[in-house]
Amino acid sequence: MNIALDMMGGDYAPLEAIKGVELFLSQNKDDVQLTLIGDEIKLNTLIREHLIDSASINLVHASQVIEMQEHPTKALKEKQQSSISIGFHLLAASKTDAFISAGNTGAMMVGALYSIKATNGISRPAIGAYIPGDNGKLALLVDVGLNADCKPENLSQFALLGVLFSRYILNIENPRVALINVGEEEGKGNILCQAAYPLLKENKRINFIGNVEGRDLLKDKADIYVCDGYTGNILLKFAESIYDIVQQRNINDEYFNRFNFEMYGGVPVLGVNKPVIIGHGISTAGAFNNMILMAKKMIEQDFIEKVKSNFV
Amino acid sequence: MNIALDMMGGDYAPLEAIKGVELFLSQNKDDVQLTLIGDEIKLNTLIREHLIDSASINLVHASQVIEMQEHPTKALKEKQQSSISIGFHLLAASKTDAFISAGNTGAMMVGALYSIKATNGISRPAIGAYIPGDNGKLALLVDVGLNADCKPENLSQFALLGVLFSRYILNIENPRVALINVGEEEGKGNILCQAAYPLLKENKRINFIGNVEGRDLLKDKADIYVCDGYTGNILLKFAESIYDIVQQRNINDEYFNRFNFEMYGGVPVLGVNKPVIIGHGISTAGAFNNMILMAKKMIEQDFIEKVKSNFV
Repeated sequence: MNIALDMMGGDYAPLEAIKGVELFLSQNKDDVQLTLIGDEIKLNTLIREHLIDSASINLVHASQVIEMQEHPTKALKEKQQSSISIGFHLLAASKTDAFISAGNTGAMMVGALYSIKATNGISRPAIGAYIPGDNGKLALLVDVGLNADCKPENLSQFALLGVLFSRYILNIENPRVALINVGEEEGKGNILCQAAYPLLKENKRINFIGNVEGRDLLKDKADIYVCDGYTGNILLKFAESIYDIVQQRNINDEYFNRFNFEMYGGVPVLGVNKPVIIGHGISTAGAFNNMILMAKKMIEQDFIEKVKSNFV
Repeated sequence: MNIALDMMGGDYAPLEAIKGVELFLSQNKDDVQLTLIGDEIKLNTLIREHLIDSASINLVHASQVIEMQEHPTKALKEKQQSSISIGFHLLAASKTDAFISAGNTGAMMVGALYSIKATNGISRPAIGAYIPGDNGKLALLVDVGLNADCKPENLSQFALLGVLFSRYILNIENPRVALINVGEEEGKGNILCQAAYPLLKENKRINFIGNVEGRDLLKDKADIYVCDGYTGNILLKFAESIYDIVQQRNINDEYFNRFNFEMYGGVPVLGVNKPVIIGHGISTAGAFNNMILMAKKMIEQDFIEKVKSNFV
């Protein structure tokens, strides 16, 4: 398998990306080829310094970088030689099997939608993020940003996408799905939730346990929490800020340390035709290593085919 | 002035309510008359035990209680002799000037809407909640639950209601208003936010500073954070659960202790024709005292008239 990395994405690129590659290759030598995309000169220097085995990698030069603040669609159009653009070209042409970047999140989303496209039968792909339960488990929150406005059918599809990721990548046999709402009873909530509830209930492919409230998200009430991307994005960023404050206040607590979303590596784009993983801007070596491992598992599990067969 | 309290509402009622009354009267003797609504026999015993000055109170018997789990509309209809029903009857008849309860939140909302009604010009009243900033300041989050689905005009009205509460009750001269969104630029977000942004920008009565993201809510970016009631409710309950976990994990931190929403007393229903304050189910004496003080200030500041004159 061939996993491509945008070496220029993220606040500490390319150094932390190279260190992540080094870490990954020190433990996984045989079956993975890594395609490193970025500034050839910079990368060659780092590859030498970090004694990266040239047999395990191939370098693809990218003369441009999409900066974090750039407008996604505009940047992708104008910077065809950027590491993200080239990454998606290679992926769409099946020259690589997965693509990872900690760069401009918007450009990664737009690139995924326009180059490798949504899987047949899926009207809106989504992004999942991990939520740490207070009993040590990890749940998945879907969607955290691709779809600010959703239809009830979208939420039902997000649920199934979450279930498949949870089952095949997180090894949870029969993951529980909950709808994030303002009350527990059916019929509660905004129009979207009122309409999504019966769809989720009727969806035979998921184990729907009903509505949960904001207070339940950290309590292992479900393995997959479903909501529109507006709500999910605000919740995720709010949770991230809790971790910032915990650090700021020098609180060293095992549970709140798990609010360090960087440790999970990155988040998968669910419902597109190839494995795409988006990392945090602040990704360090460990995060890059985790993202490569996630991509590897998605390929090994033939995750995309499993998604396709569930959305026929 | 005459402030009415539902003595039967809340998990520790009526004992903590009486202790709250005791605390309030020990510091505010002269100008406030308290109307205590609840079971006459229980209350008389407690009044004697706690040496409450009978000159400062009048007791109104209520033979029924709306329990926490009851359906609001149904309960209000069927339990006309409940403390909440009687509280709204007295308020609507101007026999009291404000009404406070830590009982069934839904029944308090429905009661406020149906008995004392929305102020002329306000299409949807809202509920505000405090959000503790990491620099020690308090912000107001509106709406946290009355309106799961909102129109852009609603958000603009919530903003002005928040500004008036912030100015006259929290003594913030020129409060900053922000729209909760998934990005900072105008044009970001769901359809609601895209349409609300220009309304907020054009609203001359508020100091609109633009969009903020989930990560900004605890960072004193604004004094009033506006969103639909679905999002606000989920955010508030999520924040409350953070405090639960902080306690559970024996973290004693000055900042996270301010996530104890009980310490703020209660939350005002904004945009109805009389002061109505809804307390937490777990309200203790200090919370009841704080709610009486909030009601007192709303009356002293002629808050309702100030709202009316801003919505002509």
